[in-house]
Amino acid sequence: MKPASRNPDYKYRVEVCFQPGQYPLYSQDMGIVVVIDILRATSAMVTAFEHGAEKIIPVGTIEEARQYIGRSGYIAAAERDGEVVEGFPFGNSPIAFAQADIEGKTIVMTTTNGTRAINLAQGAKQLVIGSFLNMTALSNWLITQNENVLLLCSGWKDKFNLEDSVFAGAVMDKLLESGKFGLEEDSSIAAKYLFMAARDNFMSILKAAPRRRRIEKLKLNEDVKYCLTPDQSSIIPILREGVLVPMEVEVPKD
Amino acid sequence: MKPASRNPDYKYRVEVCFQPGQYPLYSQDMGIVVVIDILRATSAMVTAFEHGAEKIIPVGTIEEARQYIGRSGYIAAAERDGEVVEGFPFGNSPIAFAQADIEGKTIVMTTTNGTRAINLAQGAKQLVIGSFLNMTALSNWLITQNENVLLLCSGWKDKFNLEDSVFAGAVMDKLLESGKFGLEEDSSIAAKYLFMAARDNFMSILKAAPRRRRIEKLKLNEDVKYCLTPDQSSIIPILREGVLVPMEVEVPKD
Repeated sequence: MKPASRNPDYKYRVEVCFQPGQYPLYSQDMGIVVVIDILRATSAMVTAFEHGAEKIIPVGTIEEARQYIGRSGYIAAAERDGEVVEGFPFGNSPIAFAQADIEGKTIVMTTTNGTRAINLAQGAKQLVIGSFLNMTALSNWLITQNENVLLLCSGWKDKFNLEDSVFAGAVMDKLLESGKFGLEEDSSIAAKYLFMAARDNFMSILKAAPRRRRIEKLKLNEDVKYCLTPDQSSIIPILREGVLVPMEVEVPKD
Repeated sequence: MKPASRNPDYKYRVEVCFQPGQYPLYSQDMGIVVVIDILRATSAMVTAFEHGAEKIIPVGTIEEARQYIGRSGYIAAAERDGEVVEGFPFGNSPIAFAQADIEGKTIVMTTTNGTRAINLAQGAKQLVIGSFLNMTALSNWLITQNENVLLLCSGWKDKFNLEDSVFAGAVMDKLLESGKFGLEEDSSIAAKYLFMAARDNFMSILKAAPRRRRIEKLKLNEDVKYCLTPDQSSIIPILREGVLVPMEVEVPKD
């Protein structure tokens, strides 16, 4: 194990928090919080904006979301335990959003892990949404912001989760490379090593995870493959007064 | 990243819990809990038994431990934030225990992280103490026990900690190799990959950790090197009615 690349002269910190429940332990002095729920809430949010959604209102409970079922201009989306909640037209499938007519609509969404993490961190100075789909756009934008960055993994029911952590390691890697960022936390070093182990094949992450059986049972293979494919969007969802709106950023050509 | 080695026909589970606060999420159906606090509580406990201590009473507060200062037959040990608490003859330095006359004594110990993890998990069917010092003896014993095993990392003030997680990955690796064990949790897969990244040089783990500065400041380098050196003992501390006692096991020769 080589030492994590660190720049002793760094100006800003980039850190990883593995579970929403630990957010208070890591949130101090963090200017930007990136909420990550690769499977599938934050991937679905990026996809929804990529397909023309105007706003996304993240809500904590199914009851709040249910009030918007059938209301003109709104789409109600609710997921629990990986499945669409009964009575709702959408859950958290990004492919379902990609295939629907959502142009100009406001999506009201509640999910098992992702919207909970957003609600926990909504007091942050800035809160943005990360996924493999907008990975490069997000990383480049973070590098320009002159703020400490906390990568907040949504996990699975407050447990550690591999795909969120590997993605956090991928973003961390880009930020460290810029020379502007350093890290202090053991969790951040671990995320970087997990990314290094997984970098050649993101899909392989889930091959190692017994949780894959749940994914297969719920017929989510296509969604999962989509969610693990980097750089399909240059939109960064950002929270403004409790509502997510799309922020389009320029991705420099290599 | 290659898939974690898994045996579909395994009989028992071995899982890793990264922080004491998450213990209730991982404790179900676990027959044996291994408490891990590499730097330095569980390393100190193994060392104390190796040097003849008769019992160790883990206590939660400094006040409880303080009652034993100067009492005949007892040694009071208290550590907070890496330092010996004022008024106590010992903290959690294994080398200090190795150099003292502790033959036949009862040690009453409170530490920042390790004794807290022990107290949280004291309801487990069996609770044992793990460290690099007794790694092989512990792993071999676990393989013979016919129980699910939870590797409980003490972490640092309820945050994820690298050395505890890497050690958990090392034990997990041995248990998976036996063919009797499998895993279900993402945290367990991650611990295994962290161990694989660190296996060639355990000391390098801490070279990567900015926390090293604290270790240098407190002049703990010698202690740390000692704590990361595997297989110096074949004693497994085990909890009996709230008190840790030494269980000596045979280590088969390679």
